[in-house]
Amino acid sequence: MFGRMAYRGGIDLGGTKIQAAVVDDAGNVVGQARNPTPTTGGPADVADEIAATMREASAGADVETSSLAGIGVGSPGKIDNEAGTVTGAKNLPGWDGSFDLRAALEHSCGAPVAIGNDVDVATDAEFQLGSGRPYQSLLGVFWGTGVGGGIILDGKPWLGRGAAAEIGHVCVRMGGAPCPCGREGCMEAYAGRYAMELRARREVERGEKTMLFKIMEERGRTRLTSGVWARALDRDDALAQRLMERAVRALGAGVASTLNVLDVEAVIIGGGLGLRLGQPYVEKIREAMMPHLFASERPPAVELAELGDLGGAIGASLLVKATAAA
Amino acid sequence: MFGRMAYRGGIDLGGTKIQAAVVDDAGNVVGQARNPTPTTGGPADVADEIAATMREASAGADVETSSLAGIGVGSPGKIDNEAGTVTGAKNLPGWDGSFDLRAALEHSCGAPVAIGNDVDVATDAEFQLGSGRPYQSLLGVFWGTGVGGGIILDGKPWLGRGAAAEIGHVCVRMGGAPCPCGREGCMEAYAGRYAMELRARREVERGEKTMLFKIMEERGRTRLTSGVWARALDRDDALAQRLMERAVRALGAGVASTLNVLDVEAVIIGGGLGLRLGQPYVEKIREAMMPHLFASERPPAVELAELGDLGGAIGASLLVKATAAA
Repeated sequence: MFGRMAYRGGIDLGGTKIQAAVVDDAGNVVGQARNPTPTTGGPADVADEIAATMREASAGADVETSSLAGIGVGSPGKIDNEAGTVTGAKNLPGWDGSFDLRAALEHSCGAPVAIGNDVDVATDAEFQLGSGRPYQSLLGVFWGTGVGGGIILDGKPWLGRGAAAEIGHVCVRMGGAPCPCGREGCMEAYAGRYAMELRARREVERGEKTMLFKIMEERGRTRLTSGVWARALDRDDALAQRLMERAVRALGAGVASTLNVLDVEAVIIGGGLGLRLGQPYVEKIREAMMPHLFASERPPAVELAELGDLGGAIGASLLVKATAAA
Repeated sequence: MFGRMAYRGGIDLGGTKIQAAVVDDAGNVVGQARNPTPTTGGPADVADEIAATMREASAGADVETSSLAGIGVGSPGKIDNEAGTVTGAKNLPGWDGSFDLRAALEHSCGAPVAIGNDVDVATDAEFQLGSGRPYQSLLGVFWGTGVGGGIILDGKPWLGRGAAAEIGHVCVRMGGAPCPCGREGCMEAYAGRYAMELRARREVERGEKTMLFKIMEERGRTRLTSGVWARALDRDDALAQRLMERAVRALGAGVASTLNVLDVEAVIIGGGLGLRLGQPYVEKIREAMMPHLFASERPPAVELAELGDLGGAIGASLLVKATAAA
């Protein structure tokens, strides 16, 4: 189409959902789709579902996937963008080994594909287009199943040797709670939704009363989703409140520790739980940070992620190099 | 002198000692002197002692301080290099307010003066001239009275908004030991020599037996210096061993947490205790890190600081811009 802007595709590949977006050059979402991540099969099945979701989003924007300037994928696991592979994405079915996700998607979608780390692209989205726009240095905190982090320093992502910003595994309590990662006392062991669910189940086994699992069943869920937690908190469920306060304390200590290392200008809080619980919990995390923050006389800005659920997919689209009009 | 290289002066200003060095363009120390830091008086007295120590070091290199290309000072407290001031250096006598250290030293030494943070310059020295030479990113850990940190990323210091790398105040235990800083559970609350001495004194009050204070008196000290700790450990003093194991565990957790954020190539361990206890404790810290390290399949190099006691003064000399031959 004459004079038309180049559209880019973005995929946020998560353990529970695949979110696709078609994004224009100004960062506006012009099409989107979301589907559950397959829970059985293997990487090829996940790749098929990604392609189908990308096609749905593209249809919404009235384009073919093959006319996209490119498709970016924010993925869990270990990314090798040179090789196009994703390795050991343990929340995805049968994805213990290495899979050439780029080749699979380029074949099925007919557009160039770039792959990045899910949390890094979500951080970049908030930095370029969201709450992070006013800052040159920031920490993204993605509070969901786990607690992921992303770092921007002097306007550029800091990735270290590929495993920087693993803030979920900052140790907030030596000899503390077991973390799903196998370590002890990690921030994620207290604040990650997966760890919180394990803890809630243990408490119930010990005879603790809670509405959490009843709400889960009512909502047709098999896990304690962010919505389940939010509803239980709204109903003043004592166990939910106690575990959430514990999570906030750990987030406060772990995020403040990270800030004591980085001294960035801002903290942007996103992720499933962060977005669902919203501004009141941003305030709670800020308060929980303060006792551990070294430069407490001039704390960083602490803000809710602005791009919401779509941040990951929008950020993934930014992996596609800007190109001439399609 | 015809063709002579420019010499630079460097001062490491500490709470117990003032170390001066004269350094040539290749980073070699050609003169040095050390004096105790005044414990009474005020900033002007400290500045006089700095100038005297710099003169001694210069005499050893057969130069006048006024012929130095410049003098760099690595200082505690809050540095304003624009204004030349040091503010709130609480380990120095009567230095709660602000003092124009640059003007005082330029007057007494007759050479241009630059001031930097003590730990940052020590990190830069190890990066440019010491154990950090092979790396482009590293974490300096200065284990002494407190636990200071310095960060190099992509070959450049990362200072944040001026308070980055405060690794001593990474929280390793929520609700944990009181830190001299007033917070709880900081790495420094377990591993800083000052906090360790407070703890040792409390244990003695509770009836614990130890040789620590006897050794201190024998050595004519009023504090548990690094040498006192080393001697007590050599004699298998149970309290010294227990407190040192506790310190190493905290260092392991706190340094690993910092690495989980930064994912740098190397950790360089210096500081009074780090240097005195040396390679065996570098190994102990490495071991204590591993259970908390996220990227444990490819841990960073962990090395002892190579420039030893002179690192701070050499690093301070690097604050002086390279100039034409004097």
